[in-house]
Amino acid sequence: MTRVAILGGTGYTALELLRILLNHPQAEVAALTSRTETGHVSEVHPSLAGRLDLRLENLSPQQLKERADVVFCCLPHVASMETVPSLLDVGLKVVDLSADYRLHDAAVYEKWYGHAHTDAARLKTTVYGLPELFAEQIRGQQLVANPGCYTSTSILALAPLICGGYVEPTGIIIDAKSGVSGAGRTPKPNILYCECNESFAAYSVGTHRHQPEIEQVLSTASGKKVDVLFTPHLTPMDRGIAATIYAVPSSRVSRVCAAHPKDAQSELLAACREFYNGKPFVRVVDRIPATKDSAYTNFCDLTVRVVKDRVVVLACLDNLIKGASGVAVQNFNLMCGYPETTGLLTDKPGT
Amino acid sequence: MTRVAILGGTGYTALELLRILLNHPQAEVAALTSRTETGHVSEVHPSLAGRLDLRLENLSPQQLKERADVVFCCLPHVASMETVPSLLDVGLKVVDLSADYRLHDAAVYEKWYGHAHTDAARLKTTVYGLPELFAEQIRGQQLVANPGCYTSTSILALAPLICGGYVEPTGIIIDAKSGVSGAGRTPKPNILYCECNESFAAYSVGTHRHQPEIEQVLSTASGKKVDVLFTPHLTPMDRGIAATIYAVPSSRVSRVCAAHPKDAQSELLAACREFYNGKPFVRVVDRIPATKDSAYTNFCDLTVRVVKDRVVVLACLDNLIKGASGVAVQNFNLMCGYPETTGLLTDKPGT
Amino acid sequence: MTRVAILGGTGYTALELLRILLNHPQAEVAALTSRTETGHVSEVHPSLAGRLDLRLENLSPQQLKERADVVFCCLPHVASMETVPSLLDVGLKVVDLSADYRLHDAAVYEKWYGHAHTDAARLKTTVYGLPELFAEQIRGQQLVANPGCYTSTSILALAPLICGGYVEPTGIIIDAKSGVSGAGRTPKPNILYCECNESFAAYSVGTHRHQPEIEQVLSTASGKKVDVLFTPHLTPMDRGIAATIYAVPSSRVSRVCAAHPKDAQSELLAACREFYNGKPFVRVVDRIPATKDSAYTNFCDLTVRVVKDRVVVLACLDNLIKGASGVAVQNFNLMCGYPETTGLLTDKPGT
Amino acid sequence: MTRVAILGGTGYTALELLRILLNHPQAEVAALTSRTETGHVSEVHPSLAGRLDLRLENLSPQQLKERADVVFCCLPHVASMETVPSLLDVGLKVVDLSADYRLHDAAVYEKWYGHAHTDAARLKTTVYGLPELFAEQIRGQQLVANPGCYTSTSILALAPLICGGYVEPTGIIIDAKSGVSGAGRTPKPNILYCECNESFAAYSVGTHRHQPEIEQVLSTASGKKVDVLFTPHLTPMDRGIAATIYAVPSSRVSRVCAAHPKDAQSELLAACREFYNGKPFVRVVDRIPATKDSAYTNFCDLTVRVVKDRVVVLACLDNLIKGASGVAVQNFNLMCGYPETTGLLTDKPGT
Repeated sequence: MTRVAILGGTGYTALELLRILLNHPQAEVAALTSRTETGHVSEVHPSLAGRLDLRLENLSPQQLKERADVVFCCLPHVASMETVPSLLDVGLKVVDLSADYRLHDAAVYEKWYGHAHTDAARLKTTVYGLPELFAEQIRGQQLVANPGCYTSTSILALAPLICGGYVEPTGIIIDAKSGVSGAGRTPKPNILYCECNESFAAYSVGTHRHQPEIEQVLSTASGKKVDVLFTPHLTPMDRGIAATIYAVPSSRVSRVCAAHPKDAQSELLAACREFYNGKPFVRVVDRIPATKDSAYTNFCDLTVRVVKDRVVVLACLDNLIKGASGVAVQNFNLMCGYPETTGLLTDKPGT
Repeated sequence: MTRVAILGGTGYTALELLRILLNHPQAEVAALTSRTETGHVSEVHPSLAGRLDLRLENLSPQQLKERADVVFCCLPHVASMETVPSLLDVGLKVVDLSADYRLHDAAVYEKWYGHAHTDAARLKTTVYGLPELFAEQIRGQQLVANPGCYTSTSILALAPLICGGYVEPTGIIIDAKSGVSGAGRTPKPNILYCECNESFAAYSVGTHRHQPEIEQVLSTASGKKVDVLFTPHLTPMDRGIAATIYAVPSSRVSRVCAAHPKDAQSELLAACREFYNGKPFVRVVDRIPATKDSAYTNFCDLTVRVVKDRVVVLACLDNLIKGASGVAVQNFNLMCGYPETTGLLTDKPGT
Repeated sequence: MTRVAILGGTGYTALELLRILLNHPQAEVAALTSRTETGHVSEVHPSLAGRLDLRLENLSPQQLKERADVVFCCLPHVASMETVPSLLDVGLKVVDLSADYRLHDAAVYEKWYGHAHTDAARLKTTVYGLPELFAEQIRGQQLVANPGCYTSTSILALAPLICGGYVEPTGIIIDAKSGVSGAGRTPKPNILYCECNESFAAYSVGTHRHQPEIEQVLSTASGKKVDVLFTPHLTPMDRGIAATIYAVPSSRVSRVCAAHPKDAQSELLAACREFYNGKPFVRVVDRIPATKDSAYTNFCDLTVRVVKDRVVVLACLDNLIKGASGVAVQNFNLMCGYPETTGLLTDKPGT
Repeated sequence: MTRVAILGGTGYTALELLRILLNHPQAEVAALTSRTETGHVSEVHPSLAGRLDLRLENLSPQQLKERADVVFCCLPHVASMETVPSLLDVGLKVVDLSADYRLHDAAVYEKWYGHAHTDAARLKTTVYGLPELFAEQIRGQQLVANPGCYTSTSILALAPLICGGYVEPTGIIIDAKSGVSGAGRTPKPNILYCECNESFAAYSVGTHRHQPEIEQVLSTASGKKVDVLFTPHLTPMDRGIAATIYAVPSSRVSRVCAAHPKDAQSELLAACREFYNGKPFVRVVDRIPATKDSAYTNFCDLTVRVVKDRVVVLACLDNLIKGASGVAVQNFNLMCGYPETTGLLTDKPGT
């Protein structure tokens, strides 16, 4: 049994972590922090009434160390890099759900986040917590940078095709749509019910911070310089991300596409299946996935279509689970030596 | 043509007023105020882009008087009673959409709103702006108190039956459900998209401020002491109020109910139709109304069922229109001598 | 390990059962039937892709017996009573999720369902599967009638107060609101997205089939003749039921209500807590519950308010889980001798 | 005053037409047909209760001619081409809202609709009813083919840039998202509330019938061979289409994009504004439009962004109004010689 603490316990990712961890046979939620709230967890998260008898507290790294072995850090960016070093110093393991340790280059961080990085030395060595690509590096780490939700969707969709040389690494268009929970729980006009409901809109066209993150990780994974144009959209639903991705087939695939588009499509689907063979949380499916198929699960669903000499990849996942708290528990499992699916998938072997 | 100004131009009722007034053949929107915003109206209300070339301004009563003849006051309570007297002093006509002039008794106001009334003398004489009951008094007034949205729904549903002696004036239960726009546009945690969406809950059970307002107006209209238990609920939709109201039939009706419930129901429906004869915005219907039937209109739909010696009245209206800005324009029409339906219903006589 | 089959595998309750049973350590899903579909389960329920390798089949009772020990019968009413006897005859245990075995009186069944009961003899002896009230009778049974979703909400809310003599058993008003999944998955105009979305309406006022079911079970449980007026409403959300229930306090409580309403409220809350002491799936809470608090769980949340000499009970549950498939698994656990929470609540003892 | 009839009066486009026409000072709704329904219009469309006293009827062309001057044909494709010729023969004017007369080439029609065209001769001469491009041809016509909703959004977004030579006419990607009302009102599993709500998914990737329509009309308008890849998505909301369109800048613009992307963006916005100068229903805006901005109006909102050597056009409109019934009334106005905005925009000149 591993004792865990959650830093920044009031948001949606913290709530989702709690839901998952309450079902995790090897984790015990030992502390929950907030700098502003001091109430019982059930006041902040009524759905947890009767399930967890903890109060929100403002705890120092030393106090956390006395209570917990692993910390899930759900603080906003900047706050995270101000806190994580002291957690590591006292010997805590940390899964950081903020963006602060995802980019390897402090200059890139400063450009996109508008803030100098105060722990730049650690940036280069921190492992990016996408287990489908980096499980071996994550195993046993003390610090893991949990991926962004749009990022995971995009990378899982593109990695097999770029790494396998099926599509060109540049000129990629990612048109992504997210439920509103991705915007957090801090009251702001743009996430009021009556602003989002019955409305759909793009935002941050080409300027969203997940764009460089996607490029960095796909470049690392494929060894090619990957370039994407990323457009996020806000969708009137609680949770779920759908990414529709347009890539140019490599010249070999392009010839197959032109002559036998159905064959090309089958080949690409097979390549994706092969790539994710043995990865329990990616489902390569024939039909076009809907966000509802993976809602409330740690699955990422994806498929491929070949149309008009384009490869279209369609991928969905639950932004709060596979896009945040579920993958955080995957990382926790790998860091602590538990089977990757522990607490996330209890399907029996026979099924 | 009457020049109108809107005070407090950033909220949903202001937006709805603007939409209606842009279609009103006798109204010209001449000014729009805000104490915090100074941008163009299309920045605050993007849906009005290209339709209204005004900026939000902070205007004094005297400045308003130079620009407008009538003011729609969309300020919150307290702010309203601090402003309305000076508007009246300079000779402006005022439709006040806040709660400040609805209750006749300053002590009741103070009890429910937690604030002493600073313009108490005017309370007793201000006309309550529900045209279906008080059109004659509203005509030509300088100040009208626009009704609350739950209040209008409840009163329109109950007035025919209480005034006609069909149901007991006490022991009435009003179970009301509202879309989220009724809670306004100021960012608060409880009206965030992910808090409201896929959720339904009661609030302020028996303590909502519209309860005394309903009792006062129905008592005034019927000459009986009316007593209601009012329970509001927040419903995951933009707009619409549905009230399901349970009343005890009077002894005469009760006998008919027991012997011939269908006859009782028909009699009550006929009584409602008679009561609203010549009132263009109340539709007494046979089927159970849905909020969608009256959405984006100034109609209130209602029907009656007799079940188990209870009279159940079911009423719906659009909280932003018939429950706020539409009825405000009805009042405006009556105050200025225009036909009551001007700008609200352009159906041709033949239809 | 118990092998289970699901009859009528295409609907929402079947899907929810599958989700729960895939996480149930003692259940193995061995068969899934449909009279119309023959595809793979992942074609009908895409969210189960990769999780369950079964096809829908049309199986005889004898074939079912060879594959399974327990059957969850998700057929519509009438179809259920035509099937259940033959399942019992071959020795299968049956949790029947239809309404066919819930009412004890065949005449009442015929009146409300418009169809003579073809297995009337079994009606009187079938146990009603609400474990919070009837766990002892359910244990070891071969057939259990799983309760209706509105029914469970209403009964769980009222049982402590009626059984304890805190409220009058008659004159009760139940104003209930349900998400759309309660209406099933068969395409009908009234459950189309654009008919339900942004709309709220009552239906079947005083004529809904759960009304006699509520009355029967509460009468059985309390030994008093219970009489309720039940009004259901369709709410624009997937899942969740909220019931706002108005009851008249008994004369003793009424005196306390009049003198010390807060004390009365505390006494009633304490009575509810005492009643559900040791029942893991009912949470008596202080705040007003929202449907979202219990969504995707097997909890029923409830609270009590005392207002104007009325007792108002507010209760919420997830209609597909605690209102259907979750309670079905509770019943399955009791019938098979497993701990009641198995597969439904894996919170660790320490939490 | 022009007398109009609506053929196929039960669907959402018919309802929306009725709402608009009831406010149209020059139109009188004289007949409403259905082959299956015979009830009063208020039974099929409860929101029209008290507003229109007509029954649905099954009328022959000759009977229609006796009642009406213009017919809005809201029949499904195939049914439309079987009916329209006989309407024209008796001298009726026809706005056809189906797809049957939109494509000029009968072979293309047959390929995409799977049905030989039975009125092919008329295909070549029928005017495409997009007034922003073809107002002069529409004026006075007897038959106009009303555009598809995705089509209008895409064409209005792209026409200024393709016609002006700002972007390449090929390699265009249109990622479009629609509310559910676009799928009609006939009960089908995929448009049930619980299938669409809280879900987002692509469909018909590269195979949607609006793709050739977009290509044809843009090619006609620009004199260039236009090629698009079109991906539609179903969005959990009633109404609204948002298209995010990715185009390659022409070589001249590309140079400006590379050197001064902000200047390029300004130039493109200015080109769009110039193109739609004097067109009252297209709003070229600076901010990114949301579907809610144009909901319940006949406006199409659009803007342009230049990112990474791509031109991204973002456009929104209400699929039922500007995408169907509103533009149909625009066409009606032009066909009958009324000002284009009659019944659609009553903003006063001063505003």
